[in-house]
Amino acid sequence: MTVEALALPGLPEVRPGDDLGELLAEAAGRLEGGLRPTDVLVVAHKVVSKAEGRVRPLAAVEPGARARELGDANGKDPRLVQVILDESAEVLRADRGRLICVTHHGFVCANAGVDASNAGEREMVTLLPRDPDASARALRARLGAAVVITDSFGRAWRVGQCEIAIGCAGLAPLEDWRGRADAAGRELVATHIAIADEAAAAADLVRAKDSREPAIRLRGLARHVLDDDGPGAAALLRALDEDLFR
Amino acid sequence: MTVEALALPGLPEVRPGDDLGELLAEAAGRLEGGLRPTDVLVVAHKVVSKAEGRVRPLAAVEPGARARELGDANGKDPRLVQVILDESAEVLRADRGRLICVTHHGFVCANAGVDASNAGEREMVTLLPRDPDASARALRARLGAAVVITDSFGRAWRVGQCEIAIGCAGLAPLEDWRGRADAAGRELVATHIAIADEAAAAADLVRAKDSREPAIRLRGLARHVLDDDGPGAAALLRALDEDLFR
Repeated sequence: MTVEALALPGLPEVRPGDDLGELLAEAAGRLEGGLRPTDVLVVAHKVVSKAEGRVRPLAAVEPGARARELGDANGKDPRLVQVILDESAEVLRADRGRLICVTHHGFVCANAGVDASNAGEREMVTLLPRDPDASARALRARLGAAVVITDSFGRAWRVGQCEIAIGCAGLAPLEDWRGRADAAGRELVATHIAIADEAAAAADLVRAKDSREPAIRLRGLARHVLDDDGPGAAALLRALDEDLFR
Repeated sequence: MTVEALALPGLPEVRPGDDLGELLAEAAGRLEGGLRPTDVLVVAHKVVSKAEGRVRPLAAVEPGARARELGDANGKDPRLVQVILDESAEVLRADRGRLICVTHHGFVCANAGVDASNAGEREMVTLLPRDPDASARALRARLGAAVVITDSFGRAWRVGQCEIAIGCAGLAPLEDWRGRADAAGRELVATHIAIADEAAAAADLVRAKDSREPAIRLRGLARHVLDDDGPGAAALLRALDEDLFR
């Protein structure tokens, strides 16, 4: 079995209101082999967020008391902190410049996914898409291939960030081997593989962060591709009462 | 840029004392295109552990008082719990059958990496290699390619497991974009990418858990391949005083 990851060439800078599906379809058309129904297109969320207008100019943000306090304590622009608070259901930890938040979607990540880099213009910040699974479904409908929308998340206990799936359509987000047998016939107890997150990570390997390559075609994952949208990346959120680390 | 992941064919069942480097070299020789110095060979730790004799028969384990207590409280075989405690520096959480441990290496994972599946014979459990970075260095010296040794770890807050790097030689485990500029010239603040973990995840996508495909060749990561062993996967361990989630 082989899996191949390839960046879509020549995608322009994306702006609010752009038809991202159209831009991606054009770019995929320029790729040798095009885009097949069994391919997975992995898209960095920033272009999705921008196309959907999920950006905010810091100049228009009036920080409240809590944002000013958290900003002062953590060496962060209070306007940026206000945007982070607006995107958060809960702040889990605030420590030495790091704000670990639960977003309204239920993602646990730094700064509630609010990103001050790559936002296109200075003083603009990019938010996560409002409903990344819905964004993935819309792109899948337009492109006729599975779609994963990603962001870089830090991890508890490990240094560095990995790209993970925040939205997903047409790809099974999890492969469940629990209760099934391994090569020796022994039951696999706890093997429940986060396929969509591994796909996000694989795609990130072909990308340099200073390049404009937000979209990567993964070929070779046909066994995980679905006939419908599937449960989406929401299936990857651990339920609060199952969570040992909040 | 393109990255390709391909499973090494025909690796036999590995047993304690086997020369894993030799077995991998033979299998790589049967692969079209062989193994190049810029390739990354991603190896599931179980075959490394088995070759190194890092297996224990449960029948020979005498559980102590704490193992019996934790076993009773969590519905686990107290002998297995004793092995887990032997591999742990600290138990972070014990809840509903889940033991989240800090291993002697510093990894935070379920059951201290002790695995009761795929161990070759019933009632044998597999431990993590004693020094996975050293194991990776030895394999790199034999194979002449970068080596990543992996395990499946669960994640705080997210459902399912991802393959991550527990040992690494010849591959830069992290790519540091902090202080560098993105495509728009804006400084990237917190982009520190866990390349070795993303490589582990990418390799896992070509593997079915019921197959015997512990070794995957990744081609296309030359820009992350080093002239020496590099810092290893130890560089991916977050220092205790930087950790917000213990």
